[in-house]
Amino acid sequence: MNNPQLNKNGELQHLLTTEGLPARIVRDILDRAATFVNMAEGGEIKKVPLMQGKSVFNIFFENSTRTRTTFEIAAKRLSADVVNLNIGSSSTSKGETLLDTVDNLCAMHADMFVVRHAQSGAAHLIANHVAPHVHVVNAGDGRHAHPTQALLDMYTVRHYKKEFHNLRVAIVGDVLHSRVARSQIHAMTTLGVPEVRVIAPKTLLPADVGKLGVQVYHDMAQGLRDVDVVMMLRLQNERMTGALLPSAQEYFKYYGLTQEKLALAKSDAIVMHPGPMNRGVEIDSSVADGSHSVILPQVTFGIAVRMAVMSMLAGAK
Amino acid sequence: MNNPQLNKNGELQHLLTTEGLPARIVRDILDRAATFVNMAEGGEIKKVPLMQGKSVFNIFFENSTRTRTTFEIAAKRLSADVVNLNIGSSSTSKGETLLDTVDNLCAMHADMFVVRHAQSGAAHLIANHVAPHVHVVNAGDGRHAHPTQALLDMYTVRHYKKEFHNLRVAIVGDVLHSRVARSQIHAMTTLGVPEVRVIAPKTLLPADVGKLGVQVYHDMAQGLRDVDVVMMLRLQNERMTGALLPSAQEYFKYYGLTQEKLALAKSDAIVMHPGPMNRGVEIDSSVADGSHSVILPQVTFGIAVRMAVMSMLAGAK
Amino acid sequence: MNNPQLNKNGELQHLLTTEGLPARIVRDILDRAATFVNMAEGGEIKKVPLMQGKSVFNIFFENSTRTRTTFEIAAKRLSADVVNLNIGSSSTSKGETLLDTVDNLCAMHADMFVVRHAQSGAAHLIANHVAPHVHVVNAGDGRHAHPTQALLDMYTVRHYKKEFHNLRVAIVGDVLHSRVARSQIHAMTTLGVPEVRVIAPKTLLPADVGKLGVQVYHDMAQGLRDVDVVMMLRLQNERMTGALLPSAQEYFKYYGLTQEKLALAKSDAIVMHPGPMNRGVEIDSSVADGSHSVILPQVTFGIAVRMAVMSMLAGAK
Repeated sequence: MNNPQLNKNGELQHLLTTEGLPARIVRDILDRAATFVNMAEGGEIKKVPLMQGKSVFNIFFENSTRTRTTFEIAAKRLSADVVNLNIGSSSTSKGETLLDTVDNLCAMHADMFVVRHAQSGAAHLIANHVAPHVHVVNAGDGRHAHPTQALLDMYTVRHYKKEFHNLRVAIVGDVLHSRVARSQIHAMTTLGVPEVRVIAPKTLLPADVGKLGVQVYHDMAQGLRDVDVVMMLRLQNERMTGALLPSAQEYFKYYGLTQEKLALAKSDAIVMHPGPMNRGVEIDSSVADGSHSVILPQVTFGIAVRMAVMSMLAGAK
Repeated sequence: MNNPQLNKNGELQHLLTTEGLPARIVRDILDRAATFVNMAEGGEIKKVPLMQGKSVFNIFFENSTRTRTTFEIAAKRLSADVVNLNIGSSSTSKGETLLDTVDNLCAMHADMFVVRHAQSGAAHLIANHVAPHVHVVNAGDGRHAHPTQALLDMYTVRHYKKEFHNLRVAIVGDVLHSRVARSQIHAMTTLGVPEVRVIAPKTLLPADVGKLGVQVYHDMAQGLRDVDVVMMLRLQNERMTGALLPSAQEYFKYYGLTQEKLALAKSDAIVMHPGPMNRGVEIDSSVADGSHSVILPQVTFGIAVRMAVMSMLAGAK
Repeated sequence: MNNPQLNKNGELQHLLTTEGLPARIVRDILDRAATFVNMAEGGEIKKVPLMQGKSVFNIFFENSTRTRTTFEIAAKRLSADVVNLNIGSSSTSKGETLLDTVDNLCAMHADMFVVRHAQSGAAHLIANHVAPHVHVVNAGDGRHAHPTQALLDMYTVRHYKKEFHNLRVAIVGDVLHSRVARSQIHAMTTLGVPEVRVIAPKTLLPADVGKLGVQVYHDMAQGLRDVDVVMMLRLQNERMTGALLPSAQEYFKYYGLTQEKLALAKSDAIVMHPGPMNRGVEIDSSVADGSHSVILPQVTFGIAVRMAVMSMLAGAK
């Protein structure tokens, strides 16, 4: 099958999912991101002209100031012109279809779409629809995928652990509803992480979790033992009072990451979280702010990874 | 009477309405827009420094992501600094008057206002109030006027039909509530279109429609016969369930543009729509996406026409 | 005690309040603002590259299009990249703490925060938390302070009155709830204004008003007599129908600034207002638009003062 993410020259055409993304492309993105990280740390110069005159449209059908901001900053540091579309208050609310909206923006000479949508597959739908010179980045679609989050996570892991082939990684929390977990698992499979564990109550695991090639744990103490990396997931507020969980307190007791539970991991384990954190629900503040936490470096690397993805797409022939 | 849209040198000072806009000015706008269309099609270079350092304020008292976005893109491609003001959440909600808001923005050294307002005459009010170096573009005021939409429509007609003096044009739909229809009719009168028809049920026609110099049809089959151009109007959702119309289905049956009805027009007729479309209400999808449709080119030309208007205003002495 | 607004070199590190701000710094800001005022009046050139490549985040937890716009314009005229965060619709609504939000933005290489918050002390909290290369501007925190408003007021006073040491100034209105009044009083004390009066009903004065070093009047006729400067305060709508005031009409009768009452001040007195005005409540339209009013120049000077503050902060070593 033709990979819709690559063009005929094998270059990245769209970034829709980490599933099936070649390891070569992933490594290119991480390497390119490293140059942006170094540039930003080197001092004053934060802007490069790689996307000068290009028009990037952030079309967010789901509200996310945080993710939208990271893409806006990344695009502006590449010197692109950025237009934010609050779609809740736009034409789709007047009955226009998603593809009509996209067609209109393409007619305005859009060069790139950054798309967040509550429906799985929305970014693919747009990517299949647009002309070859237009690029699509999936910024989260339903429960399906959130590839830039997974790529910044891979960058973070490589930064602190250097290699992937010798790691034991645990993903903890609401895997069932998490596009982040799915994208992380696919990325780690591609990069050759030998052991990925998921730790969650049965009610927060997908029925087909076995197909993902991961080991399943319901007990934190067992699941965290000797891991190199702990990837926490955010617990959505709406899950806490529903049928899936008894209460936030109860969840924290069994699945919240505390210093005590973290002590079961390797002594140099790193703790990651995609943010925003629910302190005292899925993670204790002492861990979030502790010496193992690399949660803020994740954010820094996230800008660089998004600059890498966007500039790579813009440079595809 | 002094034309408030022109300065003493006869240059465009404000763009408020197509009514009374000299043909010479309209043609200048279309010619200038053509250079921007050619520039964008020529390749990479989409930005020009014609408004570098200028401050454009999009003040939208009526919500319209779509129109606001087209002006924002046009201004950014002219290298202006753009500030979007969501007036629903601003000082006017604190009781400040419209003109106080405008005075304040002028005191911040605004160079241009792009104004949308639910009240007819709002853009005129502002234009009469500001200092001579400040320019106003009406982006839609009540039922009164939407001149940039009409000008991009004229651009589109000229692009496909070359001349105006030999055309038969039909405007179809809710003429009563449509500022677009009013502005189209005035522009076509100015440019010498010999025959303009309006096709609508009696409930969606203004009482004084006869004064506009158009031919009135209530039957699509008669009205579309042998026309060169079909300009569809958007049916506002709020009309569909009111006293004016029985239902959307009923409307579509009599006034929705289908392939069958379109076959009554000339074989090379073009179909236009200001967007966003209600597919299956005023227009069938097969027509919207069909070979006669020039709806997406309208959007592309719209950016160029807005760049032309804004850069012309900014250059007025 | 260490002044959190200054760095070790005695340069402005954050602008949080006018209380305790050295007169030397205040004068530097006003002098620098004067160069921006002159530049803007000189003609075309409104942009300078003093903050090129810098990232400014406007984080407004309280809605204020007007103040946010002035900072956005000021930052853009300094060539900074500006990101507006509508915090009502962001991560804090997902349970993230204020400092987590700030940490995340710092991890994105923020250079400056412009903060408005309903809680007094919010800007201080952020300033104490961020790394030394990050700067904070308080754009209004609770009832505490609004230093850029007070500084633009000082600029305005100096522009029209040249000196501070010979002035009699009256602040009129809801002093109790006004961060503007507090910041004005501290700034005038620092600059050596010998006589500051506050004029208000008892219900709109703080209990400890005596400690501020001002003279208290409850009667407009007495309080305005022979003053050089009248600083009106905005009456919040929510006060008008509460227990504090009988009605807007009653308030206007006793504390609204009319031509008649203004005649008691010096013949060359200037009238100021921070906006947005409630015409017919705290100020009569004939005064707002009259020859003594310098309300619109305040807005113009406000841009220049904010450019001065931001460029000074960005240049601190």
